[in-house]
Amino acid sequence: MKFIINRELLLETLQHVSKGLSQKTPMPILTGVKIVVTDDDITFVATNKEIAVQVKLERNEKVRLYEAGDCVVPGKYFCEIAKKVEGKDVDFTLFEKNSIKIISDKSDFTLVAYEKDDYPKTNFVASSEPIIIDSKELKQIVKETSFACATSETRIVLTGLNFKAKNGLLEVTATDSFRIAKKISKIAKEAEIMANIPSKSLDEFSKILGDESTLIKMYLENSKVTFEYKNIVFVSRLIEGNYPDTSHLIPKEFLFSAEFNRNELINAVDRTSLFSNLENLSIVKFVFSGDNKAEISSNSSEIGKVVEEISIVNQTEAVNFQVAFSSKNLLDALRAFENETIMFNFTGEIKPALIKDKENDSLTQLLLPVRVY
Amino acid sequence: MKFIINRELLLETLQHVSKGLSQKTPMPILTGVKIVVTDDDITFVATNKEIAVQVKLERNEKVRLYEAGDCVVPGKYFCEIAKKVEGKDVDFTLFEKNSIKIISDKSDFTLVAYEKDDYPKTNFVASSEPIIIDSKELKQIVKETSFACATSETRIVLTGLNFKAKNGLLEVTATDSFRIAKKISKIAKEAEIMANIPSKSLDEFSKILGDESTLIKMYLENSKVTFEYKNIVFVSRLIEGNYPDTSHLIPKEFLFSAEFNRNELINAVDRTSLFSNLENLSIVKFVFSGDNKAEISSNSSEIGKVVEEISIVNQTEAVNFQVAFSSKNLLDALRAFENETIMFNFTGEIKPALIKDKENDSLTQLLLPVRVY
Repeated sequence: MKFIINRELLLETLQHVSKGLSQKTPMPILTGVKIVVTDDDITFVATNKEIAVQVKLERNEKVRLYEAGDCVVPGKYFCEIAKKVEGKDVDFTLFEKNSIKIISDKSDFTLVAYEKDDYPKTNFVASSEPIIIDSKELKQIVKETSFACATSETRIVLTGLNFKAKNGLLEVTATDSFRIAKKISKIAKEAEIMANIPSKSLDEFSKILGDESTLIKMYLENSKVTFEYKNIVFVSRLIEGNYPDTSHLIPKEFLFSAEFNRNELINAVDRTSLFSNLENLSIVKFVFSGDNKAEISSNSSEIGKVVEEISIVNQTEAVNFQVAFSSKNLLDALRAFENETIMFNFTGEIKPALIKDKENDSLTQLLLPVRVY
Repeated sequence: MKFIINRELLLETLQHVSKGLSQKTPMPILTGVKIVVTDDDITFVATNKEIAVQVKLERNEKVRLYEAGDCVVPGKYFCEIAKKVEGKDVDFTLFEKNSIKIISDKSDFTLVAYEKDDYPKTNFVASSEPIIIDSKELKQIVKETSFACATSETRIVLTGLNFKAKNGLLEVTATDSFRIAKKISKIAKEAEIMANIPSKSLDEFSKILGDESTLIKMYLENSKVTFEYKNIVFVSRLIEGNYPDTSHLIPKEFLFSAEFNRNELINAVDRTSLFSNLENLSIVKFVFSGDNKAEISSNSSEIGKVVEEISIVNQTEAVNFQVAFSSKNLLDALRAFENETIMFNFTGEIKPALIKDKENDSLTQLLLPVRVY
């Protein structure tokens, strides 16, 4: 087995493939990258128990294939080598007895290959009818919602993002039962699906996606989701179980709504949570007194008190009202938006509040208030 | 007690003072910044057991002093506030009962002050004859030598940098007994001193020093060193004990010398140490075979082998020779230099090697080889 590959292309390929590498595992073979060279192409594969990534490169002037074969190379070291060598190309040869030689410029590495027969089989071929999603849109969806998934595995289904497609719309929902993030997008084809994809898998896949728009094919079959993106195939297991129906939890009528400058609000909430030792437990309280500003505050008996005044850009009516939220959840929700003005819709002191972009209805962030005594 | 200060000036002041703050301490008072306002100036002080920092600001249009007094404010929170508020000025008032009010723009913080009577006394006044050092030079000295100090406290004196001044020369030495870094600088005045300054103190002081040249006064008295730099006074305890005489350890005659391009050598050694799990234990071996290049290599029985070839720019004679070093110590020594070409002087396979800048004799890095079997 022998190939010579352009170093930058190798580095890019390994950066994508390594999203599927196990960091800590009782099975060392899962820290390896499997490489298969045929007469026509070369394939790089990495997998852990959750996800699998495959990158395929056709033979061309940057990918010179001299001898077919396959092997499993220690992933971390191969990535480091590709990063640090200084040649234009990297020359890779497998000798008998599992000995790999990697040469670039004046550097000469000898590595012990893993036993290739131990490498798990992964199926990267999907044959069902795919859903087509724009890569930029998918990246955006993940950014806007995945933070709201549960991290604890008490209710395993909540650690995933729920994908639901119907009537040409894709609805993606994340909730940890204290907040909900929901995004609705248009999809090209009519398709009907329902699947729970681990948020960690999507976070990793999202890092592979570039900033430009490319069509992604998404297949659901055999309890797996398979994404085809350019020359990359990304597979993740799905989470079994029924995802809770959150639609009836999202209020449609509001007590009142207030518009804020998003950045101003983020900075004020950030300062308000300064005095908490444990950021996740910091509570920020909003007080509306019927004028064009709100007071937001927090209190720590040991350290002190913070009071911030913030302008209300616009409100449906002037009311006397107060409500409190987890600072972290509120900041997460606010940071998911991008435009200047957000609309904060309140339904009651202990009832869910909704945050929306003023100009774009597609994203909903719901927060349950915290009861303050 | 009341003052209003320009926010950027406050932030800069706190960044300097906070170098003296305790991070973890059984004495919470040491995590506080002491502030003293008089009719003419305001002083900020922080101290831990090792060092103390004082910054004094005169009354001016950026520093408006309204009422004299003193208090100790929780350091971490005060720094965070100065960093995050958005007003041009910060308004600071101490009310009775240890209650501090900090107001900037629309933010209003109430903080509980520490009990000021618990704050330790520190003497920032020195009266002996100072040594004058250029701040840029001192910063450079610390960068070039302090990494070579011992980190373990087995021989406490080796955790310090030895400062020795005589005949208008300042000689600074660091050693952990496996390597020596020594820098010789000219000083303005003839002075005779000998002191061991904790390397950690100098690392912190170094962060305060700007990039421009300013004269620093350095006083040694009462087992302390006191640096006066601009409006900042930095005090550190000294380390008691006799510093070993390293001068006879530095060889003057060499078996042979080889010149290398510094960056090329750093990159090659860096790659050679890729296969070690514990970077500190990685060993790099040099083999000279009498031609214009050297081979450097390392070996890990579990992972594999790296061989690098490196050009010798120039050498005193072509010899057959091999020697091995700790990769980490070698990289530290090489990175202390700045010019393109370094001179590696060898005295024997198990005898100390010297690294010097080709153009500048002031810095010496000595490395003890590692025996390889």
